[in-house]
Amino acid sequence: MSEAKQYSVLFEPVRIGPVTARNRFFQVPHCNGMGHVRPQAEAAMRAMKAEGGWAVVSNQETEIHPTSDLSPFAENRLWDERDIPALRLMTDAVHDKGSLAAIELVHNGNHAQNLFSRAPVLAPSDMSVDYPHPKQARAMDKSDIRDLRRWHRDAAIRARDAGFDIIYVYAGHQMTVAQHFMLPHMNARGDEYGGSLENRVRLTRELLEETREAVGDTCAVAFRFAVDEMLGADGMQAAEEGRAIVEMLAELPDLWDVNVSNWANDSVTTRFQPQDGYQNDYISFVKSVTSKPVVGVGRLTSPDMMVSMVRKGVVDLIGAARPSIADPFLPQKIEQGRIDEIRECIGCNICVMADTAGVPIRCTQNPTMGEEWRRGWHPEKIAPKGDEDETLVIGAGPAGLECALQLARRGYQVTLAEAAEAPGGRVLRESGLPGLGAWKRVADYRLNELRQRANVQIFTESRLNADEVLELDIRNVFVATGSRWRRDGIGRNTLRTPPQIDASATILTPDDIMAGAAPPGETIAIYDDDHAYIAGVLAEKLAQDGHKVILVTPEGLVSSFTGLTLELHRVQARLMELGVEIICNHVLAGLGAGEMEISCGFTGRRRNIACNSALLVTERLRETALYDALKDKGLKTLELIGDAAGPALIADAVYAGHMAARNFERSKQEIERDWFRREITALTDGGMS
Amino acid sequence: MSEAKQYSVLFEPVRIGPVTARNRFFQVPHCNGMGHVRPQAEAAMRAMKAEGGWAVVSNQETEIHPTSDLSPFAENRLWDERDIPALRLMTDAVHDKGSLAAIELVHNGNHAQNLFSRAPVLAPSDMSVDYPHPKQARAMDKSDIRDLRRWHRDAAIRARDAGFDIIYVYAGHQMTVAQHFMLPHMNARGDEYGGSLENRVRLTRELLEETREAVGDTCAVAFRFAVDEMLGADGMQAAEEGRAIVEMLAELPDLWDVNVSNWANDSVTTRFQPQDGYQNDYISFVKSVTSKPVVGVGRLTSPDMMVSMVRKGVVDLIGAARPSIADPFLPQKIEQGRIDEIRECIGCNICVMADTAGVPIRCTQNPTMGEEWRRGWHPEKIAPKGDEDETLVIGAGPAGLECALQLARRGYQVTLAEAAEAPGGRVLRESGLPGLGAWKRVADYRLNELRQRANVQIFTESRLNADEVLELDIRNVFVATGSRWRRDGIGRNTLRTPPQIDASATILTPDDIMAGAAPPGETIAIYDDDHAYIAGVLAEKLAQDGHKVILVTPEGLVSSFTGLTLELHRVQARLMELGVEIICNHVLAGLGAGEMEISCGFTGRRRNIACNSALLVTERLRETALYDALKDKGLKTLELIGDAAGPALIADAVYAGHMAARNFERSKQEIERDWFRREITALTDGGMS
Repeated sequence: MSEAKQYSVLFEPVRIGPVTARNRFFQVPHCNGMGHVRPQAEAAMRAMKAEGGWAVVSNQETEIHPTSDLSPFAENRLWDERDIPALRLMTDAVHDKGSLAAIELVHNGNHAQNLFSRAPVLAPSDMSVDYPHPKQARAMDKSDIRDLRRWHRDAAIRARDAGFDIIYVYAGHQMTVAQHFMLPHMNARGDEYGGSLENRVRLTRELLEETREAVGDTCAVAFRFAVDEMLGADGMQAAEEGRAIVEMLAELPDLWDVNVSNWANDSVTTRFQPQDGYQNDYISFVKSVTSKPVVGVGRLTSPDMMVSMVRKGVVDLIGAARPSIADPFLPQKIEQGRIDEIRECIGCNICVMADTAGVPIRCTQNPTMGEEWRRGWHPEKIAPKGDEDETLVIGAGPAGLECALQLARRGYQVTLAEAAEAPGGRVLRESGLPGLGAWKRVADYRLNELRQRANVQIFTESRLNADEVLELDIRNVFVATGSRWRRDGIGRNTLRTPPQIDASATILTPDDIMAGAAPPGETIAIYDDDHAYIAGVLAEKLAQDGHKVILVTPEGLVSSFTGLTLELHRVQARLMELGVEIICNHVLAGLGAGEMEISCGFTGRRRNIACNSALLVTERLRETALYDALKDKGLKTLELIGDAAGPALIADAVYAGHMAARNFERSKQEIERDWFRREITALTDGGMS
Repeated sequence: MSEAKQYSVLFEPVRIGPVTARNRFFQVPHCNGMGHVRPQAEAAMRAMKAEGGWAVVSNQETEIHPTSDLSPFAENRLWDERDIPALRLMTDAVHDKGSLAAIELVHNGNHAQNLFSRAPVLAPSDMSVDYPHPKQARAMDKSDIRDLRRWHRDAAIRARDAGFDIIYVYAGHQMTVAQHFMLPHMNARGDEYGGSLENRVRLTRELLEETREAVGDTCAVAFRFAVDEMLGADGMQAAEEGRAIVEMLAELPDLWDVNVSNWANDSVTTRFQPQDGYQNDYISFVKSVTSKPVVGVGRLTSPDMMVSMVRKGVVDLIGAARPSIADPFLPQKIEQGRIDEIRECIGCNICVMADTAGVPIRCTQNPTMGEEWRRGWHPEKIAPKGDEDETLVIGAGPAGLECALQLARRGYQVTLAEAAEAPGGRVLRESGLPGLGAWKRVADYRLNELRQRANVQIFTESRLNADEVLELDIRNVFVATGSRWRRDGIGRNTLRTPPQIDASATILTPDDIMAGAAPPGETIAIYDDDHAYIAGVLAEKLAQDGHKVILVTPEGLVSSFTGLTLELHRVQARLMELGVEIICNHVLAGLGAGEMEISCGFTGRRRNIACNSALLVTERLRETALYDALKDKGLKTLELIGDAAGPALIADAVYAGHMAARNFERSKQEIERDWFRREITALTDGGMS
């Protein structure tokens, strides 16, 4: 394969201290909402990466002690030997697929609230915890520091005993005490752990030395370090102390895993950073300072960019979190020259959302993510077809495209009918909005796959009615007709008291704007009771188009859901910079000619806003007319999927399409029986020794 | 005991369908953050209530199906038979103490987001989920309703098999699909389940009938019903449809458990509702409509009120959630006439906070709450003293009082020294603020107990220096000297860029106000980077005192932490009604004569606020001078506890004092070994059948 050859440099082995990675693909630590609560799910998910060709597969933040208790978030845990069996599941599974397993040990300092353990919170100096919770950390004394070093050393030994090949010391993401000691604003100490840079780095140096001393004969010691806080002169900069620290510790770890801080900068969405490889400018100096291998990230999916980064000496190992979630088989596909089969990360951070919400990881592009263990789903394998042959999928949005693709992969004849001129549904429409261009990859990946298959026919501009469907004589029909935005102002906060809407009011919906409608007049008032990205994005577009935009929402912040995707701060800042007027904590009360009436969510006080038009972003109506008309018409299969069954995220629509294809020809009884494997608490004595 | 006799009516048995409660004390279902994730902890906690005399002990919301998945919140779960063993732990433990066990089955409709199960969300009509999450429920069709009834019936049978004596049907707190069907604004159905009240109640009637049919021969069927939404004519009212529903279903359940909706109304804090028995006006009609026993709640702790409620025919059974958390032995103490030993609930909702934050329950008054299983703590029992005899506790705030009390109960000689005129520390000071009067119960309960003990000496107005401590010749010293509020504006959001403070600025702290300082001039600007209750309460006080108050906070809402105690909405409303000007999302940048400079948290834009003084509510400084001076002075025990060790909630201070007393004379090694029992996920095959 000539295509593959140009990427052969990516498949060279890399020595990392006492161990060797079989190629350059390195899944860096990433959270996943499974952790110590769902260790079997995590082991299977990590093993899938190994199977897909990632030479190193890391776990996630692993708490080393009850004073670093991240509850309620389900990270990994290695407080003592009781936690070893759960972690061994992962190392065994990863080794079984020929890869190395890495563990990210962490003490979180004041980023841990210790709400479960109720232990004291520790930090370099007295300060509040890193949440709006009334609890303060105390400055660690010398005995605390000795304890911390002992906990880390003991955890490293337990990690080795659990089978890990690479053991991290972690100073990044504003989340770890090692980094907290480094940062001048968090370290006001007057002793040998504070003041000069040498002093502020002392704890990290000790952790690195002591980890090597404890386990360095068999395990590699990796150091995850944020070289830049992306705050300019207000924070650590790669050109200043960031570089100085790499120079000071250059040869101490076996591997440098370098990135930028905080998490919202490291895992920035495509909406706010469309460029892959966006960390290269910050991290590229590292290899010039150390002889040790370097891994870096930056939403890397393009093999050409990867090769270029290796050849230019930016990194030795291609790090990935999100691209490995969207496609666990990315390395294998590159190796086999199947570049166009890569499911490219769209950078939406729905993976992050799940972890932050305390539930298992999911992915917009890869609906099998998180389902490896509990449902036995494999991203590249699916059961062959059963007795049925022909299937019709109506609607080529995210649910319909995914359903059609998986049915095709199972071997059915698939007819896919789309009413619009082009397939893609909501991802096509939304990808035309500011910052959402990458959304289109959801359709592009699937269309590319579908178009290469002989058993698939795609019809566009084919709006079907029930008679036309029945005339096709295909008895298995999946209806993915999507949803449209409501025009009546009904939503979460107006259900009890619907807004009074005068016929003279000029009302628009997101569908109108996406279809190209231009709001009349200068001022448009947006009412957002959806709270995801769309109202904020529309405000951005309309402001860019020259409108005066007023955004009203019942929540305390615009697009509050984007807090879970690490975008909330950027959303507010961008809208404010564009001059959007933001009115929070208000509910839509009425609409008239040239005005919107709103009501304070706390006091009920009403006020009027002058506006030429109103854009209502509240809820969506399911498009079920065709489905309803097809009921009781003798079809063998008639299934409503995606937004037409329940409007939700694009990720949910893709998942629903995938599920429908997987479940096709399974009995309802079989599908519902037990739903899926579950992780259940052991009823033991709790391991008190 | 003559005292006990006046309460004897409370100890009459009550027949509930096929089972009999041994007295009238009924712990109604309450959440606790343990649930299916921590079933051993929950079983032990519930059993402690049974041991303390509660004749009926209920569990909490128990999900009956994956379409009612409350993750990430850890409620109970009974999706299928895999969940029975965990629940049987509780029924066995409760039966072992002679009480009945009740289970609250629930389908949560659109109050469940199904983020873990990824199942469709169900509701009477199409609508959004009950969270600012972009996901919509679909209207249940007839087949969905049949499924729901089957799930509920199957769950009832599994509940019986798990050993429960009383099985709930649940229509309350705005959280359950049975109630959602009843409420006109959530039910727009045109079929026999919508429209008339009879139709809207149909589903509940079916659930009640089918539960009785399935398990009514051996189990009582309880109905938990919110008779009033407390929204006046905008919602269901006890005098209207609330009563009509009770009339329609009067004899169908074996027990009526009646309350008000939503949760923030049912579990209102003392800050906003100081009166115990506050639900009586709403629920008192119920007994006149049904012949079945009735249980009601309303923070009931006074045995006189309980007797009166039974005698007046308001209720048959004394329901409690929070009072049973503050004192699991409340019934036994009443029975034995030990009224003044009751640890009275202060109505702070820290119990709710824990559940809402996804961690196990805790209690300000009862530090053993949640620790029954993992630490083996009993609220009424503690190990006797070891070799040591004399102890000195310095500081009679919440940590010092609790430490002294538990040391005294262990049999040590206890000297308690307080610098102020009166003991109580921060609870004394804070209880003088609007709405916080009940805080004082934390001190009152402990002082009452301490003053009756011969082995305790309490000294007030006794500020000790190190020499004076050493002169006392007591070698075991616990230092609980508390904390004071910072005056320099340093807090979470100003750590990196401290505010510029001019010497001409007039600065106050919460300590000043609590000590009686009157701010000069009309306008006071409060800067809150604490986010708990104190800044909001101070704003209330200062506004009531006639000041013009401006409240600035970096969060999107005032007192954001109070969202976890169900108070957030009331806090905003009260401050707005008092005319407080609220400026959110701004950070303190500087203070000068007559002005505060603030900076937008998103854009950094600065502005000035004119004010005569500034009240800074950011962080607290630990009072460690005495502790530091006592180090290395040859004391056998020297321990820093409470806010002096780490400023946090009053609940945390009480807990720290309790922990110190429990751990006294245990070796450090013993204390740290394994910390506590832990519930760990079973590494099984996940029970896929």
